[in-house]
Amino acid sequence: MKIAVLGTGMVGQTIGTKLVELGHEVKMGSRSATNEKAEAWSQKAGKNASHGTFSDAASFGEIVFNCTNGNGALDALRLAGASNLSGKVLIDISNALDFSKGFPPTLSVSNDDSLGEQIQREFPDAKVVKTLNTVNCTLMVNPSLVPMPHDIFMSGNDATAKETVRGILESFGWSNIIDIGDIGTARGTEQLLPIWVRLMSMWKTPQFNFHIARA
Amino acid sequence: MKIAVLGTGMVGQTIGTKLVELGHEVKMGSRSATNEKAEAWSQKAGKNASHGTFSDAASFGEIVFNCTNGNGALDALRLAGASNLSGKVLIDISNALDFSKGFPPTLSVSNDDSLGEQIQREFPDAKVVKTLNTVNCTLMVNPSLVPMPHDIFMSGNDATAKETVRGILESFGWSNIIDIGDIGTARGTEQLLPIWVRLMSMWKTPQFNFHIARA
Repeated sequence: MKIAVLGTGMVGQTIGTKLVELGHEVKMGSRSATNEKAEAWSQKAGKNASHGTFSDAASFGEIVFNCTNGNGALDALRLAGASNLSGKVLIDISNALDFSKGFPPTLSVSNDDSLGEQIQREFPDAKVVKTLNTVNCTLMVNPSLVPMPHDIFMSGNDATAKETVRGILESFGWSNIIDIGDIGTARGTEQLLPIWVRLMSMWKTPQFNFHIARA
Repeated sequence: MKIAVLGTGMVGQTIGTKLVELGHEVKMGSRSATNEKAEAWSQKAGKNASHGTFSDAASFGEIVFNCTNGNGALDALRLAGASNLSGKVLIDISNALDFSKGFPPTLSVSNDDSLGEQIQREFPDAKVVKTLNTVNCTLMVNPSLVPMPHDIFMSGNDATAKETVRGILESFGWSNIIDIGDIGTARGTEQLLPIWVRLMSMWKTPQFNFHIARA
């Protein structure tokens, strides 16, 4: 498939590279058509990798991954353009971590709203699915780095979009995929970050993940 | 030991009964010295069980369990009395769930503060340890209801108090006890509730718990 990856950081590069390895055509989007990190990535990732503006990428992709910094996500998606997102599966893996008061960060949206919901409200014609935001990017595309079982969550309003995302998650190696409901349930997964950052800080590694043990 | 259990609801009764079974003397505290639920509980739980006001209980206990509704916790602890809590281990297992706008609840404190911290700030001479708030009360005292491994978290400023609490948790059957740091880390565990309530609602059972899978 043709897939847009918005964001040139570690998350975008890791997701983009994995998607190319899986045979997809990937266009990485950023503010500038000549972003150096995006250029370097697309050269390294091979012939199915390209880059351009947020709008170029969103226009190209049949599916769009939001891999931007959560606090810049809405701005980036505005630049991507509502019409370029309309009708498409928009996989939101960002977190609105606010480091302005140091570490550990707070969330710039939480509790009575979520970033996933903000994105869905602003882009009602996109099919937003929140997932993968609860793990480090190396685990996102290689969950077996941590011995299974452990779980990945999925929130979204559109059942067909979630089935598409389930397929992508399975291609990444995920088997324990928990669909917890509509996009409002992103409040649950986004609020996993406050304990995640503290465990990461204590253990000095991001190589862990949540598992829900059941009776 | 002599232990105070503040709160007469399911959580207080379950914790109180387990403590009596383990050989402790337990006084259940409530607003009124003649609370019917506390009377019924203490009659049923046997000779090592008694009840009284919040103040009676806190005065009696060498250790104090806060099993009140989170939104009433500070009021209950004020009635218990700062002098009765001074120097004691205060185990806070409450959650500030706000159901005023229906289900799922929000948290009445979260993100940039926590109930655990509020309690520690208001009662600086108590040794507050936040724990057990991330599981249903039947699991609190019988973790093997869910096949292990799964984890219980502990936050607090006083290392000795946390060792005391670790001993109590072990006597309840817990083996995977994660000390995540000072009382500020209660922000992490209290914010596990938003996903907990959604999973409970979806699965129609509270018989599950978090496990952190590690590389």
